[in-house]
Amino acid sequence: MTLNQYIRDVQDFPKPGVMFKDITPLLGNPQAVKECMALLINNLRDKKIDKVVGAESRGFFFATLLAYELSAGFVPVRKPNKLPFDKISATYELEYGTDVLEMHIDAIKPGDRILIHDDVLATGGTAKAVCELVEQLGGIIVQCNFLMELSFLNGRKKLNGYDVYAPLVY
Amino acid sequence: MTLNQYIRDVQDFPKPGVMFKDITPLLGNPQAVKECMALLINNLRDKKIDKVVGAESRGFFFATLLAYELSAGFVPVRKPNKLPFDKISATYELEYGTDVLEMHIDAIKPGDRILIHDDVLATGGTAKAVCELVEQLGGIIVQCNFLMELSFLNGRKKLNGYDVYAPLVY
Repeated sequence: MTLNQYIRDVQDFPKPGVMFKDITPLLGNPQAVKECMALLINNLRDKKIDKVVGAESRGFFFATLLAYELSAGFVPVRKPNKLPFDKISATYELEYGTDVLEMHIDAIKPGDRILIHDDVLATGGTAKAVCELVEQLGGIIVQCNFLMELSFLNGRKKLNGYDVYAPLVY
Repeated sequence: MTLNQYIRDVQDFPKPGVMFKDITPLLGNPQAVKECMALLINNLRDKKIDKVVGAESRGFFFATLLAYELSAGFVPVRKPNKLPFDKISATYELEYGTDVLEMHIDAIKPGDRILIHDDVLATGGTAKAVCELVEQLGGIIVQCNFLMELSFLNGRKKLNGYDVYAPLVY
């Protein structure tokens, strides 16, 4: 199976000039999802992952599945004012301005071994902010895991020092 | 295991007077998630589900897992302007005003057998809008499935005619 055939290019989304990689055809096909999971989980089964942290919202899809398969807890990182309990936050840069991500203060214990997942590694800004949140709570980042990497945006550079893995590279 | 112990009451969220049921402690505990899955999946294994439709964002957590366990496709229903491809939409009532949910036009084929999942059945407005989206595309709704039901809000009444199931009732 070629997974690329389940990823749809949508021109000019979310704004003119951007080619968006739409994973909904992949999510709609259970065989493609299972194949993705096998790739994503890669060499993680012996890594003793305690928690899988997923970034809102598209990161939630495979992060919940990875946590389930690895018998780890799942931790959502969300946009501001979505999480109900006491939180920590991290700011990251957008093309114009900044945005904020939040995580519950009790989501991770010091020394927990953490897998971070998001669907796409683009500039790396979101993932870097998630790394900061995890480390604020004393978590150990085992891997930053993505379904796909847009390599021309050099996101790996921003995640220098972390193990970065993405089975699909564009 | 008593699943209730993993659901945290947060007073006055998202606004004064509301007692919010926070499922993040449950999501953080893999044994609790597996027990929830066993309850949610209930009698669905022999129901030939083609697609599991999850409502943004908290519905995504268990909807992806249900799709995975049932070897069904997963379909996200999202807030406006989040889905990149051609869409259909449904409007639903909020306490003040209305809101809109969207689904991709190719997410469901006529005759597909559909499981709808969201985390909470409250007034039923969101679930009713998801039902409308599924039926616009010719899907057959097998069950409206929730982790918990706030029975004092009478959401079942709005979903009259559908099979409604929620293992945790408050």
